[in-house]
Amino acid sequence: MSERTRVRRGAKRAVDDREQLEAIIDECLICHVAGQTGDCTTVLPTAHWRMGEYVYIHGHSRNGLMRQLMNGQTCCLSFTLLDGLVMAKSAFNHSMNYRSAVLFGVMEEVTGDHKEESLIAFIDHISPGRSTQARMANEIELKATMVLRIKIEEWSCKVRNAPTGDDAEDQNLPVWSGVIPLQLSAREPVADRPDGEAPSLPRFWRTEHPYPSSV
Amino acid sequence: MSERTRVRRGAKRAVDDREQLEAIIDECLICHVAGQTGDCTTVLPTAHWRMGEYVYIHGHSRNGLMRQLMNGQTCCLSFTLLDGLVMAKSAFNHSMNYRSAVLFGVMEEVTGDHKEESLIAFIDHISPGRSTQARMANEIELKATMVLRIKIEEWSCKVRNAPTGDDAEDQNLPVWSGVIPLQLSAREPVADRPDGEAPSLPRFWRTEHPYPSSV
Repeated sequence: MSERTRVRRGAKRAVDDREQLEAIIDECLICHVAGQTGDCTTVLPTAHWRMGEYVYIHGHSRNGLMRQLMNGQTCCLSFTLLDGLVMAKSAFNHSMNYRSAVLFGVMEEVTGDHKEESLIAFIDHISPGRSTQARMANEIELKATMVLRIKIEEWSCKVRNAPTGDDAEDQNLPVWSGVIPLQLSAREPVADRPDGEAPSLPRFWRTEHPYPSSV
Repeated sequence: MSERTRVRRGAKRAVDDREQLEAIIDECLICHVAGQTGDCTTVLPTAHWRMGEYVYIHGHSRNGLMRQLMNGQTCCLSFTLLDGLVMAKSAFNHSMNYRSAVLFGVMEEVTGDHKEESLIAFIDHISPGRSTQARMANEIELKATMVLRIKIEEWSCKVRNAPTGDDAEDQNLPVWSGVIPLQLSAREPVADRPDGEAPSLPRFWRTEHPYPSSV
């Protein structure tokens, strides 16, 4: 843990568990990437995937933010899963349940055979086995795609996965309190044509909700 | 539109519609705020709410990122709604449906009566009418809370809300193609105690999915 990844606010929510970090990264379908572009800070959403110790992102070869991220700057990626609205009896104790991670590092461009391998891993991350079904990238498409990766070295995780935490003196107020669980879920796939079975969903999508696990 | 908010990649997806921008901001329960902290860029998720021409965020009075955002720097907020996985016949044409917005600007601290008003608007944004039920902040709690706002002046919106877009030569490949709609949704509220009715959900949560609207 570095000085910039030490969780200061709500330090009791800090999680120092590499396995949980990787689970959060893997469950997120998108992350938010921030860096310096010209004279200002820019943050944009993008799909990502993980291979071992690295997180990968991709974009068009002429993508403005991605080109800037390659200039050696330390950039920052944020991964956020929103798990619930925590409705306390006092406004102040309202909160959210979430699992989140922040990663700092320097992007490196991925080239050669590993670029192609990484794009196969990407599509299989979104839908396991999809790389054996879809037509994979040809040379022109590979050239139009830029892949960057960042090593998972400097990171922090913060998780809230708990019921309401009202003050003792508010406990008896006649106000509904509890948690409204939130979940990103898939609806029925909408096929272009009835060409067979729908692809599989990401393997990591939870069927158990983190809090409370029984709903 | 400024030079930094001009959508360069996928320009056909740019949306220049203030009403749609506001709808995206209002539907997002969290945004990602990026700024310079010390020698590096940091991005963190945070809840936000909108009042007219301003987006508000809040945090602990000693929150590190928030204090840095007050130093006059131009920061960047990203609002992202993930609406679907677009499963094309070629890997290259896979995509996501989304509604997203990016906002640049300088944060100003909100103080005095408007600070209290804004926190009431925040809780009613999460759950309409909640400010008339929950115990609102007392002086100590107000003091412990910092509220910042940013004017909606320099922004861009990008939306993909469409079926797959395969190349003509891939149309007849025997690969399932279509859209898997995604939606953040609430599950059954979990009450601390049976104290009455559960609070109302955010009024803006859609019942109609943007693509396809019929599912």
